[in-house]
Amino acid sequence: MQRHIRVLAWIPLVIGAIALTAANRPAPDSPQYTTDGRLQLPQNYREWVFLSSGLGMTYGPIGTGHVMFDNVFVNPSAYRSFLDTGRWPDKTVLVLEARGAESKGSINRDGHFQGEIMAIETHVKDEKRFPRQWAFFGFRGTATVSEPAAEPAATCYTCHEPNGAVDTTFVQFYPTLIPIARAKGTFKTTP
Amino acid sequence: MQRHIRVLAWIPLVIGAIALTAANRPAPDSPQYTTDGRLQLPQNYREWVFLSSGLGMTYGPIGTGHVMFDNVFVNPSAYRSFLDTGRWPDKTVLVLEARGAESKGSINRDGHFQGEIMAIETHVKDEKRFPRQWAFFGFRGTATVSEPAAEPAATCYTCHEPNGAVDTTFVQFYPTLIPIARAKGTFKTTP
Repeated sequence: MQRHIRVLAWIPLVIGAIALTAANRPAPDSPQYTTDGRLQLPQNYREWVFLSSGLGMTYGPIGTGHVMFDNVFVNPSAYRSFLDTGRWPDKTVLVLEARGAESKGSINRDGHFQGEIMAIETHVKDEKRFPRQWAFFGFRGTATVSEPAAEPAATCYTCHEPNGAVDTTFVQFYPTLIPIARAKGTFKTTP
Repeated sequence: MQRHIRVLAWIPLVIGAIALTAANRPAPDSPQYTTDGRLQLPQNYREWVFLSSGLGMTYGPIGTGHVMFDNVFVNPSAYRSFLDTGRWPDKTVLVLEARGAESKGSINRDGHFQGEIMAIETHVKDEKRFPRQWAFFGFRGTATVSEPAAEPAATCYTCHEPNGAVDTTFVQFYPTLIPIARAKGTFKTTP
């Protein structure tokens, strides 16, 4: 009987050890880099949390380029933190996937549906790594390793920083996050 | 020493018992019904796996109604099964969320972004419950309980059954699933 109790006493210890190990490990969806500082494309970003889609969204001059859909995904650990605080935590990764807009395929007779990937861009918060806390990385074609981070003078920064509703990000276009940011007082009304 | 070995021998038993309990429980993202057979809106479907978006997609006559975005999500357990088999397992839940298409908000100057929810429709596979294996449930406004399942003669069935590329579902519009279904031989080329 005493031996039985001793055996049972081990169980919480084992579970505790597993939990401690998990707590000290970075979230599995944290940004990963190559040794020369490029971002590795998160392999399963399509299983991350979807924030929204747009079609043909343009912030600059109208009518340039092919009309595309954009889908935005965020890593689940950052999403959960945003739900609690209305802020993006360190190690947030936003992935913007641009896809061609198709029409009149299969039984579809009007409107647009999504085709192949045309480009992938990411917006990453890594406070100690980047001088402006956030950085932008683009991926060419089907590359799984990004180009070098955009230069600090690039337009991605100069547009996102003044215009992003929450911490340089375009939460104003993510309908499920708007009420959270407003409730937490982190939503900045932009021009 | 012998006692030590006996203690360690317990650990796989405990883990095995936990795993067995989990295996016998229905997936937490399985469809849930009211006692009168209506579907309960999955509370966290926005955290499910996103399949695709369209804008103004019409299968019927062109030019009717307000142009809307549609976002499609699937429960994660069904998604994982589809990746392995190219088929939808029992208890698949597809959620179609229609949202208004907004334009010229914030710094956006062209194109469309997503606004408020206009309608939610679901397509549910529950082989023993539905005579046609699948059923459609719509939700009015902000309701969290559906209307009764669509009648078997409804157009949702008569359109999805002949035209859905995989098992009455419109996989032909879900770009990440098309190559999987083709590789598994489950993709049916439709008109």
